[in-house]
Amino acid sequence: MSIYIALIHYPVYDRQEQVTATALTTLDVHDLARLARTYGLDGFYVVTPLRSQQALARRLINHWVTGRGAVFNPTRKEALSLVSMADTVEEALQGIEQEQGCMAKTVATTARRYAETRSYREMAELLHTGGDNPYLILFGTGWGLTQEVVEKSNYVLEPLEGKGYNHLSVRTAAAIILDRLLGGA
Amino acid sequence: MSIYIALIHYPVYDRQEQVTATALTTLDVHDLARLARTYGLDGFYVVTPLRSQQALARRLINHWVTGRGAVFNPTRKEALSLVSMADTVEEALQGIEQEQGCMAKTVATTARRYAETRSYREMAELLHTGGDNPYLILFGTGWGLTQEVVEKSNYVLEPLEGKGYNHLSVRTAAAIILDRLLGGA
Repeated sequence: MSIYIALIHYPVYDRQEQVTATALTTLDVHDLARLARTYGLDGFYVVTPLRSQQALARRLINHWVTGRGAVFNPTRKEALSLVSMADTVEEALQGIEQEQGCMAKTVATTARRYAETRSYREMAELLHTGGDNPYLILFGTGWGLTQEVVEKSNYVLEPLEGKGYNHLSVRTAAAIILDRLLGGA
Repeated sequence: MSIYIALIHYPVYDRQEQVTATALTTLDVHDLARLARTYGLDGFYVVTPLRSQQALARRLINHWVTGRGAVFNPTRKEALSLVSMADTVEEALQGIEQEQGCMAKTVATTARRYAETRSYREMAELLHTGGDNPYLILFGTGWGLTQEVVEKSNYVLEPLEGKGYNHLSVRTAAAIILDRLLGGA
């Protein structure tokens, strides 16, 4: 099975539920790259249409993959080698198709309630037995993926339910979701 | 069951395996506070003996718990209300004893190998059935908790094993560990 993740900076909601493009958080790129390497994923797309943000991400990646960071911290190189940039989710899907020879199915993650969601157990089962197609798991920054992105996805994961509190950072939510789907605990 | 977490800034290892005091990362305080709230924990101790770092943490907590941040983002207040400061692990243990009326047992987390470790399943079982005492789960910053801290703990959790890679951030590692112990998935 081939599994990719994407960190979406546009389109996502802001605090007023308006569609916005969020700024890149470099620490998120590090944390999700390290998660991708930990769970043996095939790649990690940072999705933003903003050129300045793409340039920032590329500088970060180059520093750690081919620059001085690669010598300073080889384990970080291993993780950040998995990162690619994309303008849109569609562009990420095209990249995966080129690599894998077939379209990926998308899995949306959200803290909101949607009608047709999959449990972690169901989704883990699907990933392990669900045919030859790759999967792309989408994580939203800001106040989360827009309804349009979620409803266009092939699958929607149920929200992480804490004790009446679902306000985790995207970093820690991604960690928990990947562990539930792929940790094999 | 009463469960606390502590984020340890001293004593931990630096990259050369020397004992050091790391600087506070404010984002870690936010992320771990939100995790503590999500999993219904009783408290979260930020452990550092450095006065300047304690002052920084207190400013952050006050902003979100009683200052303007509390109005701006009430869910962040709910999370950061769980945070206390301590000079040492011992001081955190004393704080818990005052609150709960009995000493907590400590659970060390580490990416290194130790002889006597508990699996996540064993530890989850212990937390649910292990008597009336509270537990304090220790997370190390920098290059991890010192051998002395780990060996003085009542329990040591097995390392998170990725596909030959165990270099997660303390934020994401804490998320995965708390979910495995308390997520009830």
